[in-house]
Amino acid sequence: MSNKISTGPLSGFMELLPEEQLVFNRMMDIIRSVYEQNGYIPMDQPIIDRTESLLANVGVDTTKEIISIEREDDKALALRFDLTVPLARYVANNYGHLTFPFRRYAIGKVYRGERPQAGRFREFYQCDVDIIGNEQLSVRYDADIVLLMARVLEKLDIGPFEIRINNRKLLNGLFQSLEITNTTEILRIIDKKEKISSQEMTTLLQQEGLNQQQIDTISIFIDAVNIDDLPKIDNPLYAEGLDEVKQVISITIKSGLEKTYFVWDPSIARGLDYYTGTVFETCLLNNPEIGSVCSGGRYDDLASAYTTRKLPGVGTSIGLSRLFDQLMKKGVIIASLQKTKSQVLIVPLTDDLSYALLLQNQLLKSEIACEISFSDSKLDKRMSYANKLGIPYTVIIGEDEVTSDLYTFRDMDSGSEEKLSASDIIGRLQ
Amino acid sequence: MSNKISTGPLSGFMELLPEEQLVFNRMMDIIRSVYEQNGYIPMDQPIIDRTESLLANVGVDTTKEIISIEREDDKALALRFDLTVPLARYVANNYGHLTFPFRRYAIGKVYRGERPQAGRFREFYQCDVDIIGNEQLSVRYDADIVLLMARVLEKLDIGPFEIRINNRKLLNGLFQSLEITNTTEILRIIDKKEKISSQEMTTLLQQEGLNQQQIDTISIFIDAVNIDDLPKIDNPLYAEGLDEVKQVISITIKSGLEKTYFVWDPSIARGLDYYTGTVFETCLLNNPEIGSVCSGGRYDDLASAYTTRKLPGVGTSIGLSRLFDQLMKKGVIIASLQKTKSQVLIVPLTDDLSYALLLQNQLLKSEIACEISFSDSKLDKRMSYANKLGIPYTVIIGEDEVTSDLYTFRDMDSGSEEKLSASDIIGRLQ
Repeated sequence: MSNKISTGPLSGFMELLPEEQLVFNRMMDIIRSVYEQNGYIPMDQPIIDRTESLLANVGVDTTKEIISIEREDDKALALRFDLTVPLARYVANNYGHLTFPFRRYAIGKVYRGERPQAGRFREFYQCDVDIIGNEQLSVRYDADIVLLMARVLEKLDIGPFEIRINNRKLLNGLFQSLEITNTTEILRIIDKKEKISSQEMTTLLQQEGLNQQQIDTISIFIDAVNIDDLPKIDNPLYAEGLDEVKQVISITIKSGLEKTYFVWDPSIARGLDYYTGTVFETCLLNNPEIGSVCSGGRYDDLASAYTTRKLPGVGTSIGLSRLFDQLMKKGVIIASLQKTKSQVLIVPLTDDLSYALLLQNQLLKSEIACEISFSDSKLDKRMSYANKLGIPYTVIIGEDEVTSDLYTFRDMDSGSEEKLSASDIIGRLQ
Repeated sequence: MSNKISTGPLSGFMELLPEEQLVFNRMMDIIRSVYEQNGYIPMDQPIIDRTESLLANVGVDTTKEIISIEREDDKALALRFDLTVPLARYVANNYGHLTFPFRRYAIGKVYRGERPQAGRFREFYQCDVDIIGNEQLSVRYDADIVLLMARVLEKLDIGPFEIRINNRKLLNGLFQSLEITNTTEILRIIDKKEKISSQEMTTLLQQEGLNQQQIDTISIFIDAVNIDDLPKIDNPLYAEGLDEVKQVISITIKSGLEKTYFVWDPSIARGLDYYTGTVFETCLLNNPEIGSVCSGGRYDDLASAYTTRKLPGVGTSIGLSRLFDQLMKKGVIIASLQKTKSQVLIVPLTDDLSYALLLQNQLLKSEIACEISFSDSKLDKRMSYANKLGIPYTVIIGEDEVTSDLYTFRDMDSGSEEKLSASDIIGRLQ
């Protein structure tokens, strides 16, 4: 192998074996299918965009390292780092052609320039959904997104999950009424609720300058189990948040989906994001260490960098590459035993390929995935090909079979063989 | 709109409206589904790779401008410009994990740095299939790829087509026997057969230094209608080519597919590519000006840059973005009238959303795509949403409907309304 160049993918880039790729694709197909079944419209945008455009959106964390394209002229171009920023440009550009509320989904690769760490990718798939309103958008659409995520996770069948829902107006109203101004720092502390003791939280809040009365009210707030346990606070933003979260929770209860999927959690803040109303996170209860599978919420204005029109929205994203990687490592999902979609390997042993070709044509017309072994190798090597790929059935066509019009149909798992006509083979496989 | 930045995509990048995206996705779904039904295994590789690796493959035209990534260190990275070069690296890297012959497909975006011209994209989808053999690969697999393309084009339903098949060994054997050495130039002239007169061809061949006897033999060769019309030439390569093209054509005839799909055409040379045996092009007979929809053929050795193992292969690629763009412009395909997959818009008029939510849940369980109108707007505006998106049915749930358990089911096309129970609605839609 001297003078041969490196064959592996770059670090931070996922490259799967067929048996893994099939599982990955099945997950992506489920996500796509649930999105479409719920009326979300597909979008597919370029991976390259103007750097100016990628960094223009309000609230985006511009410290993320973006990957830039080498150019001789002065037009800076880069690879998209999420699917929301390009969405903003798209909606502004196609405003007159879209019907609002605009429900859309996008599944595509995004890029981060940061040094790869364990479990971090520099190229990864995101599966986004958003609903964009024109000037206004009912809070009930926030519930639509939450129900959609529950339907996706139910179909993905990766263990029990919980969608934890809250509303930022509750927290912001609480802070207003308590005259707290360093909200970012306080939200960051509240976000840690799951990981630290209440004593540690008190200490952290004290360090941020909060007094005992403020800390007590926050404690009552984030420890509330039911919405009715919340402290009564006379603040219009707080009242709005209370009304909104009640509407969203009410829809989840009436949705006909399992009630255990949805939990109101007053400590969910998504402190570092640009959400303004509903916020939610999703936890796999058997694998909480994976972190939130999809987080999202309501934002006030999608495309202020591009248009003076107000376009409020609600959305979320599944980081599929990371989720797949984590679930594989933890054994929640396993590589496919079948390494192809082929159900049948047709093995002609005669020079005349007519019978094999006609059988293939019939099987395909009956939507049975199949392939012909065109190899010159001996029979056992051709059967071994089927075995290695996990193709469940083989059909052997030799001189005897051609004469009798009955083919040898072999169940590769049990090893049992039968002589069957073409139509019987199709009947057996359908 | 002052101070607002540009909203359009970069030139040379495709960005579709929903009604176009749905048609594009349908085409891609058909291609993917036929590939998988025929036993081709999905592959999805990174878009970014080492420049060294992208430019390493034998026979690749390195003059194509590649798009490079900006880097501070000395490891040059770039965007892939096709899907074959990454395949070579993959097969070399995963050799021990793959089962040969390795049938794979890949559908993904590739990039070209060249200045965009009309109909040329800088980012576009390719839909590749290849079969890679280990040390050897029967010529019958070349036929497998040809049949696959016919099945794809049949399902795409974009008009009559013809796959024009030839074998480079015939041409190369002919040149050997005629002692022609400037084969690249001669192949380039033969490739023009469709576009120039036989007199013009003679002139061009004379300019390349060919004598009358050589030109006559080439003329007899490229004007042959049947394989039996070919000049008899005593050359081992020519004999091999003759045998191979006969085998491939014989399989197409016996395939059970329409015989008109396949044509042997001695002038097909794919002169500028790195093919060594079977070559083919595909023409849409009603739109020949589009050019070849998928061209491909046999190559001797996929991964010589990475491994000393000999890995012969056969493959082809559909340039989907360009094909879609051309077919739309020529009106062969048109934008979808339905701009979403939703079949039903559920329109609750009461504050209690239970009925709407339960109906949605039932419809989704019956695999009927639907969505709820959660809007605060008046009824006519909500119906107009359904109309604009081309959603064929609406279900209106008001006080009367709740009391009677019969919902107003409206056919948006005819405007007719009926009172139906939830189960009758499902029955109607299934």
